[in-house]
Amino acid sequence: MHVQLNPLGSMDLLSQLEVDHLKQNTEQEAFRLFRNCCLAVLNVGSHTDSSAEIYDQYKDFSVNLISRERGIKIELFNPPQSAFVDGQIIKGIHEHLFAVLRDILFYHSRLQSNKSWLDLNLGPHITHTVFDILRNARVIDASNEPNMIVCWGGHSINETEYKYTKEVGYELGLRGMDICTGCGPGAMKGPMKGATIGHNKQRRSSGRYLGLTEPGIIAAEPPNPIVNELVILPDIEKRLEAFVRVAHGIIVFPGGAGTAEELLYLLGIMLHQDNRQQTLPVILTGPKQSEAYFREIASFIENTLGKEALDLFEIIIDDAPAVARKLKLGAAEVRHYRKSVGDAYHFNWTLQIEPGFQQPFVPNHQNMAALDLHLEQDKATLAANLRRAFSGIVAGNVKDEGIKAIRQHGPFQISGEPKLMQMMDTLLQAFVDQGRMKLPGSKYIPCYRVVR
Amino acid sequence: MHVQLNPLGSMDLLSQLEVDHLKQNTEQEAFRLFRNCCLAVLNVGSHTDSSAEIYDQYKDFSVNLISRERGIKIELFNPPQSAFVDGQIIKGIHEHLFAVLRDILFYHSRLQSNKSWLDLNLGPHITHTVFDILRNARVIDASNEPNMIVCWGGHSINETEYKYTKEVGYELGLRGMDICTGCGPGAMKGPMKGATIGHNKQRRSSGRYLGLTEPGIIAAEPPNPIVNELVILPDIEKRLEAFVRVAHGIIVFPGGAGTAEELLYLLGIMLHQDNRQQTLPVILTGPKQSEAYFREIASFIENTLGKEALDLFEIIIDDAPAVARKLKLGAAEVRHYRKSVGDAYHFNWTLQIEPGFQQPFVPNHQNMAALDLHLEQDKATLAANLRRAFSGIVAGNVKDEGIKAIRQHGPFQISGEPKLMQMMDTLLQAFVDQGRMKLPGSKYIPCYRVVR
Amino acid sequence: MHVQLNPLGSMDLLSQLEVDHLKQNTEQEAFRLFRNCCLAVLNVGSHTDSSAEIYDQYKDFSVNLISRERGIKIELFNPPQSAFVDGQIIKGIHEHLFAVLRDILFYHSRLQSNKSWLDLNLGPHITHTVFDILRNARVIDASNEPNMIVCWGGHSINETEYKYTKEVGYELGLRGMDICTGCGPGAMKGPMKGATIGHNKQRRSSGRYLGLTEPGIIAAEPPNPIVNELVILPDIEKRLEAFVRVAHGIIVFPGGAGTAEELLYLLGIMLHQDNRQQTLPVILTGPKQSEAYFREIASFIENTLGKEALDLFEIIIDDAPAVARKLKLGAAEVRHYRKSVGDAYHFNWTLQIEPGFQQPFVPNHQNMAALDLHLEQDKATLAANLRRAFSGIVAGNVKDEGIKAIRQHGPFQISGEPKLMQMMDTLLQAFVDQGRMKLPGSKYIPCYRVVR
Amino acid sequence: MHVQLNPLGSMDLLSQLEVDHLKQNTEQEAFRLFRNCCLAVLNVGSHTDSSAEIYDQYKDFSVNLISRERGIKIELFNPPQSAFVDGQIIKGIHEHLFAVLRDILFYHSRLQSNKSWLDLNLGPHITHTVFDILRNARVIDASNEPNMIVCWGGHSINETEYKYTKEVGYELGLRGMDICTGCGPGAMKGPMKGATIGHNKQRRSSGRYLGLTEPGIIAAEPPNPIVNELVILPDIEKRLEAFVRVAHGIIVFPGGAGTAEELLYLLGIMLHQDNRQQTLPVILTGPKQSEAYFREIASFIENTLGKEALDLFEIIIDDAPAVARKLKLGAAEVRHYRKSVGDAYHFNWTLQIEPGFQQPFVPNHQNMAALDLHLEQDKATLAANLRRAFSGIVAGNVKDEGIKAIRQHGPFQISGEPKLMQMMDTLLQAFVDQGRMKLPGSKYIPCYRVVR
Repeated sequence: MHVQLNPLGSMDLLSQLEVDHLKQNTEQEAFRLFRNCCLAVLNVGSHTDSSAEIYDQYKDFSVNLISRERGIKIELFNPPQSAFVDGQIIKGIHEHLFAVLRDILFYHSRLQSNKSWLDLNLGPHITHTVFDILRNARVIDASNEPNMIVCWGGHSINETEYKYTKEVGYELGLRGMDICTGCGPGAMKGPMKGATIGHNKQRRSSGRYLGLTEPGIIAAEPPNPIVNELVILPDIEKRLEAFVRVAHGIIVFPGGAGTAEELLYLLGIMLHQDNRQQTLPVILTGPKQSEAYFREIASFIENTLGKEALDLFEIIIDDAPAVARKLKLGAAEVRHYRKSVGDAYHFNWTLQIEPGFQQPFVPNHQNMAALDLHLEQDKATLAANLRRAFSGIVAGNVKDEGIKAIRQHGPFQISGEPKLMQMMDTLLQAFVDQGRMKLPGSKYIPCYRVVR
Repeated sequence: MHVQLNPLGSMDLLSQLEVDHLKQNTEQEAFRLFRNCCLAVLNVGSHTDSSAEIYDQYKDFSVNLISRERGIKIELFNPPQSAFVDGQIIKGIHEHLFAVLRDILFYHSRLQSNKSWLDLNLGPHITHTVFDILRNARVIDASNEPNMIVCWGGHSINETEYKYTKEVGYELGLRGMDICTGCGPGAMKGPMKGATIGHNKQRRSSGRYLGLTEPGIIAAEPPNPIVNELVILPDIEKRLEAFVRVAHGIIVFPGGAGTAEELLYLLGIMLHQDNRQQTLPVILTGPKQSEAYFREIASFIENTLGKEALDLFEIIIDDAPAVARKLKLGAAEVRHYRKSVGDAYHFNWTLQIEPGFQQPFVPNHQNMAALDLHLEQDKATLAANLRRAFSGIVAGNVKDEGIKAIRQHGPFQISGEPKLMQMMDTLLQAFVDQGRMKLPGSKYIPCYRVVR
Repeated sequence: MHVQLNPLGSMDLLSQLEVDHLKQNTEQEAFRLFRNCCLAVLNVGSHTDSSAEIYDQYKDFSVNLISRERGIKIELFNPPQSAFVDGQIIKGIHEHLFAVLRDILFYHSRLQSNKSWLDLNLGPHITHTVFDILRNARVIDASNEPNMIVCWGGHSINETEYKYTKEVGYELGLRGMDICTGCGPGAMKGPMKGATIGHNKQRRSSGRYLGLTEPGIIAAEPPNPIVNELVILPDIEKRLEAFVRVAHGIIVFPGGAGTAEELLYLLGIMLHQDNRQQTLPVILTGPKQSEAYFREIASFIENTLGKEALDLFEIIIDDAPAVARKLKLGAAEVRHYRKSVGDAYHFNWTLQIEPGFQQPFVPNHQNMAALDLHLEQDKATLAANLRRAFSGIVAGNVKDEGIKAIRQHGPFQISGEPKLMQMMDTLLQAFVDQGRMKLPGSKYIPCYRVVR
Repeated sequence: MHVQLNPLGSMDLLSQLEVDHLKQNTEQEAFRLFRNCCLAVLNVGSHTDSSAEIYDQYKDFSVNLISRERGIKIELFNPPQSAFVDGQIIKGIHEHLFAVLRDILFYHSRLQSNKSWLDLNLGPHITHTVFDILRNARVIDASNEPNMIVCWGGHSINETEYKYTKEVGYELGLRGMDICTGCGPGAMKGPMKGATIGHNKQRRSSGRYLGLTEPGIIAAEPPNPIVNELVILPDIEKRLEAFVRVAHGIIVFPGGAGTAEELLYLLGIMLHQDNRQQTLPVILTGPKQSEAYFREIASFIENTLGKEALDLFEIIIDDAPAVARKLKLGAAEVRHYRKSVGDAYHFNWTLQIEPGFQQPFVPNHQNMAALDLHLEQDKATLAANLRRAFSGIVAGNVKDEGIKAIRQHGPFQISGEPKLMQMMDTLLQAFVDQGRMKLPGSKYIPCYRVVR
């Protein structure tokens, strides 16, 4: 089977020079990445979170770029049939494919062109890049009210938790809030589905369902076609920066290592002296049965980052309307704060993010083993290091490269101060026991070993 | 609690004279009806289908009209809280309330004004009235493609059947079809919910979810707020005429007496000589487990209306994509046919509907007992009489007046040719056994007795 | 030549019954009127203001209604070619033709249907009818800001005056104001042309150019296609009522008898005790050379209606920006006033209009001779009678019926108190001398004789 | 007086890094250019075409950029008052100011950033730049029908000619065509004004009035605020390339040296072997009195570029509807041609433009004297050289730098083959005699001397 797709979105208007540059990428590493991300996007509705498995299943899938004077087309060979209705590709997936082209190939080639002046070791240049990617994806709209709620949480959650995330999304939708998630299944899909119904009931036809992902995770957590704005950031650090700069409020649902990474990233930043004035409501929430889970998380945070870290968020158990109400009020305060300091509503420029949180961490065995994990260090630095540890575990669990590395070299070794190691081990074991590490259907074999 | 609501839709621009007329209605019967329909609309999400029960529960609810030089407002006292979010009424429900005002009070007063020339005994005048009500509700749009699929089926269906109606709605939504139902729960809600997700995935932001109801049924089957176009026709016959004239395709899901009424109405009309040329795809569909149910229905139809009635529809079991695909093709043929005969796309003017189907049937004990039910009569007339019998049973099951009449006088007596009576009894008993007569939670006591 | 036109606007959705009613009109008086108004609308750009002349010129023009199940079409035979571009009718004229159908035939038949309850001898019923016609024409929009400036003035004005009306329109357009006029040439066209440019410069793409006319005047003053909302009121009195109820400010440019009629109508109403609180800015304005003209008008008003009438308007000479500025401020006060009394922004319900101004005056020789014209009567009554006198002169000048009556019976005789007669004679003679009675190109022969 | 303006258009969303770069430009040459272009845009409606004069008049005008976290603002000190209405800047001028910021400063800084890979000596890179500037200005819309008519002609034309350009614009507007001009007065303003009325009559609210200018000419030919899409290309060559690549048809009205330059550019390109297949309708048109003028032009072209050049255009005298009709048909053929070769509708990628037409020509005394002007050379090369000669004369007439150079060094010396020199002298003298070189009000002193 073989299909040609016309360009959409900002890929609609390319110059011949740009088309040529895109075509030249064909032989390179970036193109392999592009092909894999296309497959992930097409493979929506699949029931595995192993990137490797998906790539195995569709070995005969390939993708090609066709250059026309009038622009660029994407050509698909042997795509998964679930993306099509009566031979026509679903519009939402069509859009996602061109989002992949835009963010993986086009933006890659823009970065190459800018190498002479753009220095990705510099904080302001990284922030510029995050903004530029979002702007190029047309997801930044200066005319919108501040109403973007970022929802974090696990891709593998149980039915009760999933229903609760839908409920919260529904209550947010009823209150006119938009949703941003990491765009996979579970806690990333529920709030969007709920908000869709809420928006419909309030006759809000322009509801936004923003998905922020990255090349390594997109196959394991493919964007549901409800996601009507999809952006693929180059790495997890820029994705996290995008989350916190576009958020007018953040919800953390139950999750595993990835959710822990996100929360540690957020707290590490908010603990910074310069961000004390920032207004950003953060709520940890879940159904009644998740109460113990959140107590455990809170206790881990208190014991590692201290009491003041607890003041940066609130835990609400089993009360979706209350969560939505608080975030609506909170977003109004965000608006007020941004106005008072002259900041933009749609992108939080004033938030200070230290190099430790901006610089990409490569989760290989060497780097994982070298992590500096002891309690007696600056809290923000500790948060940064813990964030890296969890980031590595996510990679080992679901990312293609991570899985391959683990297969080859065995589990990552995580070592450090025994007391801290014990706390981590406990937390991670709880994630494992609760089935949060991987989608159900397979026994989870840890990709790490905590050396105590 | 007490709330004032600004006018919406076509109630937005009334003259002082019109406002005065509306206000004068306050003391009359029409106003009681208006109050009850408002309550029904507000009471969305309730779990009973007994109008009487609902009216009992909210005895202290009242509604008032406030006239301002700038127009009319609706004032609510002690409304059900489920209609509000943080003290603000849900927009969809707000719209529904003004649809009630428009169709119950305003259109009532328009009919009064037109009494001098409008003769509701005449077919063309009835059809004009149906059209005028729909036009006044702004649901007729000459610029739309013909893509309105009417979905009939029971309000009380089991979980498997409900899921299947959602699936069919989803597949229709993916194919750009809009949905029209009787706007209650069950088979009337599922297709709309499914289509919402389908429309979203195809980025169709202007999806239409048209609900057609009538004053007697609205409390038992309150419109879900997803319904973004609500019209309350004056009686069941005009509601049925509206269904078949706006439809570009019809689906019949499993249901009880009401669904049987709808199907008999449709077949009775389509059997008419003048309608042989009409193009209107009709599909009976359900999950695997509904197969026996549909065989039973088909057999009843064959035995009563004859083999040729079977040719007017198709049965598809457990194949939602096939249903949607056929209806999409069918709607294209409808367009082609309408164009060829110069008919409108949005309203089927050329469909011939005989007086027996247009004239209101009042389902009291006397009329029910007097029904002429024997097999040796014109098939269309038999269909009309059978339709009336089922209509009466619906009234006895869920309509306020019907329930009261049954309470007072005992069950309706249905009598006629023994062979036919046996067939009816068997069918009705099957509906009872399958729980299709009433929502679960109460034991069903039949409101009828088949006298054999 | 022969053309068929598809329906537009509210004529787009008619029932078969309505189409039948329209068709039945074909043989009647109303249909002759319809045909003549169609001709007037098609004949845009002609250089005569004699209705009779136009009707003579296009004797072979005819119009037909075609009924289709899908709606009604207008068929034109031998239409003036100026309305077409490469065989295609200009969209604006197409719209105007269906406005004529809507207001002349369709609304006529609605009035017939409502005869049983609508009593056009009653003030509130007349006001309802004016509102209903405007609403049916979709020119009332509750969501608009109050910014409608009614511009009155002569159809025959000199080049300097015409340029000035354009300038004022331009300055109004720059300030976001919309324009309503009687939709003929001269002072009725200039402000719209000017406002078009002003709106464009301010990127206001939804500028409104509302033309209010009546069957008797439409041929002499055909609507320019810039008029994007055309309404034909049944008679001059309802047209005048429409003007004052939709206005958020009024400009009077130099003009002849028609302009005098409009001004007397306005002042007669505003002098009413109940309208003292009303906020409605009125400005008389023209270029430097018009100063004497306005002094003359003001003096006539002072001598007839008294000093207090002078307080109801302001004269601004040769200062277009000042006029626009005042009206913008004035419209804001109108908004404030309407809000304070709970009146609508888009239609001034609270304005009191007495029967003497609402009841149609038929300008025949008998009625003209019988006018009660003496100074010692209630000021509002005097204004009403003077208004009628000028109304008759307009009819004798440009309306088909009036011209025929004058041809047959000679000039109207206007008599009354000698002092008042002298004042009228002076004023009318000035209009004649300044060429305001008729378009240039013919010698004006008065249609009246002031009997002193 | 002092005003701050919020960003519009694509300047609405800048990163902090971009804002910083813009601010750094403050001290440089580019900023002086920016200031002057702002002045030009604000100074609309002035009656001089001498850039130098304008800059003299507003010596105390200055402009500043204010950087906010939320974006960039333009601050004006002592701006011309004609740009304001009641203290508020006219929206169209507000937009133009940010177009100036975008094209002069922002795009300048983008070019700086791309220096490492973008080589403006290469044709494809130049074409990419032209496209990129237009795209960045959001004037390229893939969804539009091909209907852009480029109108060339003099800024100083007589009243009869001006009226004729309005008429042609009106007829184009009636046929749904959009207008692109060099956005100054005269033949650049008339067609837009006419089209505005035509668009209004056809209810086309999204009419496009595209102005393409360059920094050197903008002061002499400031964009009328009707221009709703303004782009400032870096130099005359890129401006000419933009014209021919966005055009779906070209009109040449009477004009002087600038118009001759444009026509020679166009013919030089169209004569190229590779462009023989191109479809691009070109019409030279004017009122009756311009007939001799066009004969003269045609004869000059025949004598220099040969008979085949005459086949590339058509002359139509005094028939505005015929011009519009031909171009509408022609644009349909353009669409057909582009489709057949797979080219874009909105930008003519396949048109071959040789280096001689793309490389900027600096019109100083040395370059002007060095022009190779003799008949026996390749026709396209001759066209290129003649184009340069006329380009230099335009510079000497109205551009700031040119005027200063002439003041300092005296007129340009143009020399070459005597026969050709005589032809040029005759043509130029005709331009002078007909008052086409400069706006009326001053005696024209030639900025050139043809050395024979």
